Amino acid sequence: MKKNYLLTPGPTPLPPEVSLAMAKPIIHHRTPQFQEILKEASQGLKWAFQTANDVFIISSSGTGAMEAAVANLLSCGDTALVVQGGKFGERWTEICRAYGIGAEVIDVEWGKAVDPEEIGRRLKANPQIKVVFTTLCETSTGVDNDIRSIAAVVKDTSAVLAVDAISGLGAVDLKTDEWGVDVVVSGSQKGLMLPPGLGFICLSGRAWKLVESCKGSRYYLDLRKAKKALDKNDTPFTSSITLIIALNESLKIMKQDGLENIFKRHRTMADAARAAMKALGLELFAPGAASDGVTAAKVPAGVDGEKLVKTMRDTYGVTIAGGQAELKGKVIRIAHMGFITESDIVMCIACLEKVLVQMGYKFNLGAGVKAAEEVFLK
Amino acid sequence: MKKNYLLTPGPTPLPPEVSLAMAKPIIHHRTPQFQEILKEASQGLKWAFQTANDVFIISSSGTGAMEAAVANLLSCGDTALVVQGGKFGERWTEICRAYGIGAEVIDVEWGKAVDPEEIGRRLKANPQIKVVFTTLCETSTGVDNDIRSIAAVVKDTSAVLAVDAISGLGAVDLKTDEWGVDVVVSGSQKGLMLPPGLGFICLSGRAWKLVESCKGSRYYLDLRKAKKALDKNDTPFTSSITLIIALNESLKIMKQDGLENIFKRHRTMADAARAAMKALGLELFAPGAASDGVTAAKVPAGVDGEKLVKTMRDTYGVTIAGGQAELKGKVIRIAHMGFITESDIVMCIACLEKVLVQMGYKFNLGAGVKAAEEVFLK
Repeated sequence: MKKNYLLTPGPTPLPPEVSLAMAKPIIHHRTPQFQEILKEASQGLKWAFQTANDVFIISSSGTGAMEAAVANLLSCGDTALVVQGGKFGERWTEICRAYGIGAEVIDVEWGKAVDPEEIGRRLKANPQIKVVFTTLCETSTGVDNDIRSIAAVVKDTSAVLAVDAISGLGAVDLKTDEWGVDVVVSGSQKGLMLPPGLGFICLSGRAWKLVESCKGSRYYLDLRKAKKALDKNDTPFTSSITLIIALNESLKIMKQDGLENIFKRHRTMADAARAAMKALGLELFAPGAASDGVTAAKVPAGVDGEKLVKTMRDTYGVTIAGGQAELKGKVIRIAHMGFITESDIVMCIACLEKVLVQMGYKFNLGAGVKAAEEVFLK
Repeated sequence: MKKNYLLTPGPTPLPPEVSLAMAKPIIHHRTPQFQEILKEASQGLKWAFQTANDVFIISSSGTGAMEAAVANLLSCGDTALVVQGGKFGERWTEICRAYGIGAEVIDVEWGKAVDPEEIGRRLKANPQIKVVFTTLCETSTGVDNDIRSIAAVVKDTSAVLAVDAISGLGAVDLKTDEWGVDVVVSGSQKGLMLPPGLGFICLSGRAWKLVESCKGSRYYLDLRKAKKALDKNDTPFTSSITLIIALNESLKIMKQDGLENIFKRHRTMADAARAAMKALGLELFAPGAASDGVTAAKVPAGVDGEKLVKTMRDTYGVTIAGGQAELKGKVIRIAHMGFITESDIVMCIACLEKVLVQMGYKFNLGAGVKAAEEVFLK
C-alpha cells in the first residue's frame, strides 16, 4: 500500500470536486450550455485576479500565457526591463530574446526580492523601456516580490508592468487593479488547484494600447482574437472544456473561503513551515523575502539534497521539490499552495524529520513539528 | 431526465476509462513515475501516427500545433502553398500570413477534395514554395483529401508536405512514413477520444532541416526545445499531466482494436450515415470525397438547418454539428469519429428523422434507419 501526498509548487493537489468534474461526460463547446460555463469562469477569474478587466483563458501551460504577454505587448526591436532573480525571471528574458526584444536585466541575487527603487532608477535611465516584467512568487527560490511597491514605482512612468503570477495567484495577495498592475499572467496548476493546461492573462487599458500597436507575429496567442471571441462569450480556438469546467468547481471552493481567508491560510502555513525549518536548524533560503506560497530551505551540510527528496517521495509517498538549475541538490522546497492544509504541513515536516534522522543529520526529533503546531495554535 | 449523445466532430465522446483516468489524484511531472507515462505516450503516438519519428505533445488546442508547424518550418518572406477547401484550410493561410509568410492558395470548391495534380503544377510553376499545407479531413465540409496521392506528388519536389490531421487521425488511414508525409499535426479531441487540450506534431528528417534553418520568433512552440526535452523523456514546459495520462488510456483501447479495424469501423459507419442521408433524400455535401470521419449533408429546402440542430440537441439531447462560416444553416454534420458505434449512428439517424417529421419535411419514416441497418448487416 502506498499513499501519496503532493506538496510541490505546481502541480498542487486537486480538491475531489475538481477531479470528479473532469470525469463527467464531455460537452460541446459551441453550445449555450458551455457559454454559461465560460461566463461563470470569466466572472470567477475577474474575482480571483482582483480586476474588472477581462481575464483570457489560453489552452497552454503558464509559459504560453507569458509568451502571449511578450508577443502582444512588444515588437522586435523594442526594449523591456526584466527582473531576474530565479528560473522564472530568466524565462521572461528568454522569451523576449526569442522575439528580438531587447531585454535589460536586473540581476537579483537568488533568494532576494528585487528593490522596487532599482526598477525606478532603470526606467529613468532608459525611457525606451516599454514593459517591466517581474514575478510574483519566484518558485525556484521561494521569494515573493513586493508587487505593490513595484507597481507604485512603474505607475508614474510610461512603462507597463507585467507580472508572472503563475505561482502565487490564489495564494498570495495581488490587487491587480487597486495597485495598478497592468498585466497579470497565471496558470492553472498552482493556487487555482487545477491540473496544468490552462494559461490566463488580463490586461489594463494602458496595456491594450501596446497590444493594438504591436507588430509581432502571433496567431494562437493573439489576444485580439481572444478579446473578439470573449466579447461573444467564446474562445477563438477549441476550449480545454474539461479544465474550464473544473475551474468553475475550484473557483466555487475559493469563493466560499473568500480571498482574505485564503491568503491568511497561506500565510499561516508559510509561518509554520518557516518556524519548522528554523527549529530543525535548516536555514531559510530567502529569509528576507520568503514566499507565502512555497518555503525554500538550504539542505544542511552533509546531507544529500537530491536523495532527501527522493527518499521522502519513494519511501513515504511525500513529494516535495528539490532545487532547480543552480540550486539543484542545494535546497528543498515545500509548497503550501492551493489545496493544502495545516495537517498536510505537519505531516510533511514529520516525514522530513524522519528522513533527516535516517540520513544522519543531528537535531531534536519532533522540534519541527512542534514549532509548526505552535504557529497553528496561535 | 435528460441523456446526452455527442456526435460532433470534436469534441467526440470519451470512453469511461479515459474519463475516470482524469479523476485520479494528480502526480508531479518531474518524476520517474511520469517519465514512464510520457514514454508510453510517445511510443503509443508513434504507433497512432504510423511514424518512426518523434511525436511531440504540446499543451494547446490543435491550432497551436498547426502554428508550431508554420512557425518552425518557415521564416518571414518564405513561400508556402495552401490547399484551401474549407475553414481549416483557411486556417493554414491565416497562420502563414500572421507570420509574414507568402501563402499561395489553391482555392478548392467547398465540398470537393483537392486534385493532387494541381499541387504538382503549382509546385512546378513556383520552385520557391518550401511547404505544402493541406488537411486530412476538412471537418467544415466533410471532405477527406487524398493524402497518399498528394504525398506522391510532393515527394519528388524540394517542398515539404504538412498535413493537418487534427480531424481524421485515428479515424482515417494516414500512413505517415510509408506515404512520405513530412509533417503531421493533430489534436486530442477527435479520433484520439480525449478532451481538447493537447496538440501533436511529428516531423520527417527533411522537415527538420527546415526547422534548423528557420529564423522566425518562437518560444512556447519551439520544436527544438520540444526535441531537446523529449530526448530526455521530458517536456519543455509543464505537461498537461491529466490529459497525457488519459491519452495512454485511449491509446490502450485503440491498440486493442488495431488501426485497420478502427479505420474499417469508421468506414462502415460513414457508409451507413451516407446511405441513410440518401434514403432520406438529403443530398451529401461532398459526394465525391466524403469523409469517413464526418458526414455532411445539405439541409433540405424548406427546413431551417439551425433549428433542426438545435431541436435535436435541446429536445432529444442528440448533438450533431451544423454548418460553419458560409455553410451556416445550410448543412448538418454527423460525426462518426472516435468513441462512436453503429448503435450511436442508428440512434442519431432516428432522432434526425423524428425532428425532420416535426419540421414538416416529407419522406418515408424509418427509411434512414433501415438504410443504415442494411449497411451494418452487410
